[in-house]
Amino acid sequence: MIMRALIISLLSIGTIAAPAAVSAADEPIQPIEAAKPKNENMVELGKMLFFDPRLSKSGFISCNSCHNLSMGGTDNLQTSVGHNWQQGPINSPTVLNSSMNLAQFWDGRAKNLKEQAGGPIANPGEMAFTHELAVDVLRSIPQYRARFKQLFGSDQINIDMVTDAIAAFEETLVTPDSRFDKWLKGDKQALNQTEVEGYKLFKEVGCTSCHNGAAVGGASFQKFGVHEPYKTASKAEGRFGVTGKDADRFMFKVPTLRNVELTYPYFHDGAAATLEEAVNTMGRLQLGHKFTKEENAKIVAFLKTLTGKQPQFTLPVLPPSTNETPRPKPFG
Amino acid sequence: MIMRALIISLLSIGTIAAPAAVSAADEPIQPIEAAKPKNENMVELGKMLFFDPRLSKSGFISCNSCHNLSMGGTDNLQTSVGHNWQQGPINSPTVLNSSMNLAQFWDGRAKNLKEQAGGPIANPGEMAFTHELAVDVLRSIPQYRARFKQLFGSDQINIDMVTDAIAAFEETLVTPDSRFDKWLKGDKQALNQTEVEGYKLFKEVGCTSCHNGAAVGGASFQKFGVHEPYKTASKAEGRFGVTGKDADRFMFKVPTLRNVELTYPYFHDGAAATLEEAVNTMGRLQLGHKFTKEENAKIVAFLKTLTGKQPQFTLPVLPPSTNETPRPKPFG
Repeated sequence: MIMRALIISLLSIGTIAAPAAVSAADEPIQPIEAAKPKNENMVELGKMLFFDPRLSKSGFISCNSCHNLSMGGTDNLQTSVGHNWQQGPINSPTVLNSSMNLAQFWDGRAKNLKEQAGGPIANPGEMAFTHELAVDVLRSIPQYRARFKQLFGSDQINIDMVTDAIAAFEETLVTPDSRFDKWLKGDKQALNQTEVEGYKLFKEVGCTSCHNGAAVGGASFQKFGVHEPYKTASKAEGRFGVTGKDADRFMFKVPTLRNVELTYPYFHDGAAATLEEAVNTMGRLQLGHKFTKEENAKIVAFLKTLTGKQPQFTLPVLPPSTNETPRPKPFG
Repeated sequence: MIMRALIISLLSIGTIAAPAAVSAADEPIQPIEAAKPKNENMVELGKMLFFDPRLSKSGFISCNSCHNLSMGGTDNLQTSVGHNWQQGPINSPTVLNSSMNLAQFWDGRAKNLKEQAGGPIANPGEMAFTHELAVDVLRSIPQYRARFKQLFGSDQINIDMVTDAIAAFEETLVTPDSRFDKWLKGDKQALNQTEVEGYKLFKEVGCTSCHNGAAVGGASFQKFGVHEPYKTASKAEGRFGVTGKDADRFMFKVPTLRNVELTYPYFHDGAAATLEEAVNTMGRLQLGHKFTKEENAKIVAFLKTLTGKQPQFTLPVLPPSTNETPRPKPFG
């Protein structure tokens, strides 16, 4: 009898909770859940490192320079500015919700955030440093040594610890509570009619075959240029650069559309300045569909509902260099 | 009788409060008081503008790039990186406590923070933009227009409004509660003996003739190179560049020593990498005094007690550009 009562009780809970849950689960897009940091101290250290330009040769470029958390986790430039004002070869993807990507970089050459974090530090066109020199800087600063010791049990800082901490911070950079997520969770007032129609169209024409899941993308590599080739001056060839397989030519990681209103310009070459242009190009090249002006406006209206709550945090105060700290070399 | 009692009562209060007050007032350095912002909304707008790289031609450089509030309000570089990676001619002074300066820039060419704020935006070697283009960017963004309208009664944004807001934010960037200020206010445990001896020596040898007041500097122009000329590759000639008067050659604004532990490297040319070097050079050139190693260590120990509570605030989230916003031009 007790068991039976319990089951009935559980079923009742199920019944009450069911409608919203089933409805959200039926959709190709799921709401983003707020981050639950496992280790607040690790996140804090990662935040400091993310904002510390001393991880670059120049002492001028930090992770936040190109993944600016005031601007949707991007630099809003077609391609980024690197050491010595070098022009980057590709558009900086947003760091927001990047923990949900199947791999990192447009070509997926890093399997996760930790592996990604080491890339730009040592890239001669970006931060132009070496892992060894970056670690030397951190080791010379007692407040950094103390934090690493507390977290890793050793103040013999190494690049693995550095990228662990940066990745831990980046995992917190999720953007829940967008109007679309509220709508998904049952608040039908969260979207207006145009936005709902835009979402329906987004599904009907096939955008959700690739832009799905909680991140509305990031879950697969796809060929850019299905119905017609993509015309670009960019030399990037996507997965082909990683695997060397002909079948991977122009296969790029599908970008997340979360916060897409903030992450302009669009595509791996940053060639589309506006959402309207990006939507039209995607329709034509990927779906063989020419959107009417009205359809385009509806989809753009829907896409703007994907802007979530941006990470809110106190700007970190960085510990000063010491007399032993190697000095940055911006000009030589 | 009542009046007499009141006077006695007031005198008693005076007697109790007197020792600390008289002692602090007798010192050549006064404590910094916390900022009391007059208009929180103006400060918030100013903070957004301070962090917005869209005030530069490239869309990559903001006020915070060279006056980094994670790093003592400086870039910790000898001279700054400007548009197209141009090497700046002079060391970026800290923005912290800069509201206390008699004028802005090393040569004092701007009379206040508002006048200063417009300088780097339009300087071809720094942000390389124009006031008109910067304002065009802001006018194209509805969230900015709404904030300006709320504060100035008009959304016809102009550069005066922009620099008013930036200056209002910068006025909040003061750093109270340093250990030295606690000591000044009567907490005699706040400094150790070496630090107190360093302060006494700092006064005795004459550093306080220029480095005095709440900002420990910033209140006068002084010739750099009194007892012997300062040797430097820098072409900066200080006030002479503003007034054209021979007497003003190598007259520079005395920099604040507040947070000097964080604002390395030192001097207008950033040539002194360490505090030890800066103290020795200042002793020799300005006071004709060669510090012993022990004296130098004491003064450096004292100087490190001037690090105050750094401004704590949430990183601003900037409103996105619209289709009408002129795009940044980092590479041409």
